[in-house]
Amino acid sequence: MSAGELDKKNTIDLRKKHIGPSCKIFFSHDPLKIVRAKGQYMFNEKGQQYLDCINNVAHVGHCHPDVVKAGSQQMELLNTNTRFLHDNLVLYAKRLQATLPDKLSVCYFVNSGSEANDLALRLAWQYTGHKDIITLENAYHGHVSSLIDISPYKFQQLSGAEQSQFVHVAPSPDVYRGKYRADHADPATAYADEVRDIIEQAHKKGGKIAAFIAESLQSCGGQVIPPKGYFQQVADHVRRAGGVFIADEVQVGFGRVGSHFWAFQLQGEDFVPDIVTMGKPIGNGHPMSCVVTTREVAEAFMSSGMEYFNTFGGNPVSCAIGLAVLDVIEKENLQDKALRVGQYLCDLLEKLKDKHPLIGDIRGRGLFIGVELVRDRVKLTPATAEAQEVIYKLKEQFVLLSADGPHRNVLKFKPPLCFSTEDADLVVEKMEVILTELEKALGLNMNNTVNGGNERQQASADENGPHRSSFIKTNQGTPHPSKRLKTR
Amino acid sequence: MSAGELDKKNTIDLRKKHIGPSCKIFFSHDPLKIVRAKGQYMFNEKGQQYLDCINNVAHVGHCHPDVVKAGSQQMELLNTNTRFLHDNLVLYAKRLQATLPDKLSVCYFVNSGSEANDLALRLAWQYTGHKDIITLENAYHGHVSSLIDISPYKFQQLSGAEQSQFVHVAPSPDVYRGKYRADHADPATAYADEVRDIIEQAHKKGGKIAAFIAESLQSCGGQVIPPKGYFQQVADHVRRAGGVFIADEVQVGFGRVGSHFWAFQLQGEDFVPDIVTMGKPIGNGHPMSCVVTTREVAEAFMSSGMEYFNTFGGNPVSCAIGLAVLDVIEKENLQDKALRVGQYLCDLLEKLKDKHPLIGDIRGRGLFIGVELVRDRVKLTPATAEAQEVIYKLKEQFVLLSADGPHRNVLKFKPPLCFSTEDADLVVEKMEVILTELEKALGLNMNNTVNGGNERQQASADENGPHRSSFIKTNQGTPHPSKRLKTR
Repeated sequence: MSAGELDKKNTIDLRKKHIGPSCKIFFSHDPLKIVRAKGQYMFNEKGQQYLDCINNVAHVGHCHPDVVKAGSQQMELLNTNTRFLHDNLVLYAKRLQATLPDKLSVCYFVNSGSEANDLALRLAWQYTGHKDIITLENAYHGHVSSLIDISPYKFQQLSGAEQSQFVHVAPSPDVYRGKYRADHADPATAYADEVRDIIEQAHKKGGKIAAFIAESLQSCGGQVIPPKGYFQQVADHVRRAGGVFIADEVQVGFGRVGSHFWAFQLQGEDFVPDIVTMGKPIGNGHPMSCVVTTREVAEAFMSSGMEYFNTFGGNPVSCAIGLAVLDVIEKENLQDKALRVGQYLCDLLEKLKDKHPLIGDIRGRGLFIGVELVRDRVKLTPATAEAQEVIYKLKEQFVLLSADGPHRNVLKFKPPLCFSTEDADLVVEKMEVILTELEKALGLNMNNTVNGGNERQQASADENGPHRSSFIKTNQGTPHPSKRLKTR
Repeated sequence: MSAGELDKKNTIDLRKKHIGPSCKIFFSHDPLKIVRAKGQYMFNEKGQQYLDCINNVAHVGHCHPDVVKAGSQQMELLNTNTRFLHDNLVLYAKRLQATLPDKLSVCYFVNSGSEANDLALRLAWQYTGHKDIITLENAYHGHVSSLIDISPYKFQQLSGAEQSQFVHVAPSPDVYRGKYRADHADPATAYADEVRDIIEQAHKKGGKIAAFIAESLQSCGGQVIPPKGYFQQVADHVRRAGGVFIADEVQVGFGRVGSHFWAFQLQGEDFVPDIVTMGKPIGNGHPMSCVVTTREVAEAFMSSGMEYFNTFGGNPVSCAIGLAVLDVIEKENLQDKALRVGQYLCDLLEKLKDKHPLIGDIRGRGLFIGVELVRDRVKLTPATAEAQEVIYKLKEQFVLLSADGPHRNVLKFKPPLCFSTEDADLVVEKMEVILTELEKALGLNMNNTVNGGNERQQASADENGPHRSSFIKTNQGTPHPSKRLKTR
């Protein structure tokens, strides 16, 4: 149980021997061995501190003492399943419900975002009696087989994979790089109309829509913020077809967006999903998760006659931890802090954008921020290798950031919510130096952006960060600071 | 976070309001509010102690101090994902591997038995390139949608549910009630030949077998112990068809069977599955789980190009807890204890069987024991209502037992492994009194067993126990001690 027993090489060797090779590691050519963490900082085996801009799971800060205490105390007392009555379960459900619109009143506790999204599909299928699912381009909803099917981010990685006939992929409502952009008069309607058209097409083929599912803000998909009003219109179309709207808040919920507790609320007070799924930050790292839905959907699910039992879901320890996380968010005003620090960081990044041609777009809500790097601001040529370079250079300077999106060119900020303005200053300062060097090597300046093909680059990594480094070759053949090789 | 804050009625009311109605509760007419537990005992809000014969998840005993300490200490230090190197992950994988045959060397850590079995299917599909799955009658493998499809225990609860064309159901190798019984010359071969025939039928229809999956001992299916040699023969048939053998140890692993650490090992030293899934007891209640497979299967899975990432799976806290569970099993000789106490309990139950016609069969390995109740030892008429009655009466006497199997007439013993011979004496003593009363009311004695239809009774509950009570009507119209109504 003790950390740091083995020297790093032994750890790596044992990992190669006994851990599935599909389980990737950050910075694979020189991975990090982290032995402790506190707040927004992680520490390696030598005591070196890293500023953590990526661990959205450690929502209220790594190893928050209140959360640890709640978990430890409850572990000493009781940890069992929900076939027994327990106050933690019902008090936690009540507390969660209070953060949501009234009609979202019935909870199912599960162990992971994947279990939550799978259950959401089961609820939708049972409630509607329909089968077809509409998902978004580049979406990621989890790793169990039913979710790979509705996650283009995943199934498009498979050579020769077939898209299930029940799955329909709508364009990502990305107003920077998507089909309808910021210059469009009404991108919300335009993107929602795409969903309407998909429904019509499905109907023509005899399909029936069970659900539309989307992250309230696309995370792995490239930190995409859908235009306001999009969800309402989509929900109208989908409900008219007898389907339900599933808002996946696994990555973006619990106050991260600052202005609201849930990211779907950014769309406006009038928007209420039929099912909301939660995950990652819910237990600050403890494996837990939740699905919340309406009484109607819950009753329909019950009417199938099939019990729902989840061995670990909703156990008293998980609920104690979940309650503690809600307490800390409230007590430390972390939602407000996310709003304030997020805005501060966005402002700094916007200033950086004015000086650095590699930055194509800054978009964020609270402490959910994307910085999209491009080689050409007109053609939007993804600066994929450059994004990897930024991340590797930052790591050398003890800052952890990741890149994602279909082109792996969007730097993702999703730090613990205790992230401070000083932390923001630090990371932006370091980014500025790295971008300056990179642009110099590339021969890029504000009046001269590198042109290059806009081909889609193969994104072979998962939803959460840099697994392999890249070798940058610029069009000009400029020697590049990076010596690292793309492994495949 | 404090337990017992609400009075019981409030807890029930809040549960009705906010928890999915498909989530059933034990003893629904008068559920238990459990506020603490220790070893093999649970305590309600009034401090009343219950002997726990059913919580196989609390494997080394409820709230074992070593496990609590390991979890608490690691929670204080670090809890993050497996994209960082950590010794707990690799040391735990190494320890787990050491309990298994050498070729089962590669681990994937996940959060639940359901996630484990879903991943096992994904591994099988990818490795074989085939799609069809053979599962057993009455099998339960988990609650995510892919597993409902291969769990007759679940999908047969749905009215009008269709069996997936890729799923084939083989007879349960139940030598008491199944197609081939104890009087058969070679039930192992007979049941394995059924699988061979299924493969042939599938091939005729163009199907290709990806996997055969079975619990090493069927649990929800009625505590079924397959005849020795069955798995070897099935594995031969399945491998010849290009498929793999998945042993589901979620309920039965980690020394419960006493003579071996894994229940599949009961089949003989020569049997090695291609994939083993673990769950429930692995973390003594902490949400965690594991899939172990061969290097070949793991490499094939990687070759798809798709990363496998699980946010919580294999985190340092889960691994610390998993290591502590292994330590306790070893330190307290719990596997030996399971063997010894299990044998003691079986012997007591056999003696009970000699005197009580309601007991049709006693079968067990270690502390995994089934007591099948029948109204007629020749016709094997399931004594479903009587099994419920036993359970309810035991509960009134502060002993927790459950019933399962397709007819819900198999009393299931699967207590924490610290269960003692004194505990065994206590429960058998109480059972004796209850059975005597029941048999008297039914007019049953060893020379006069009640006849009755052998119709399959609708089993509408889940894998773990008594959710509703039953109203017993005997054929003789004898007034029955139970006044409780079957709710549906």
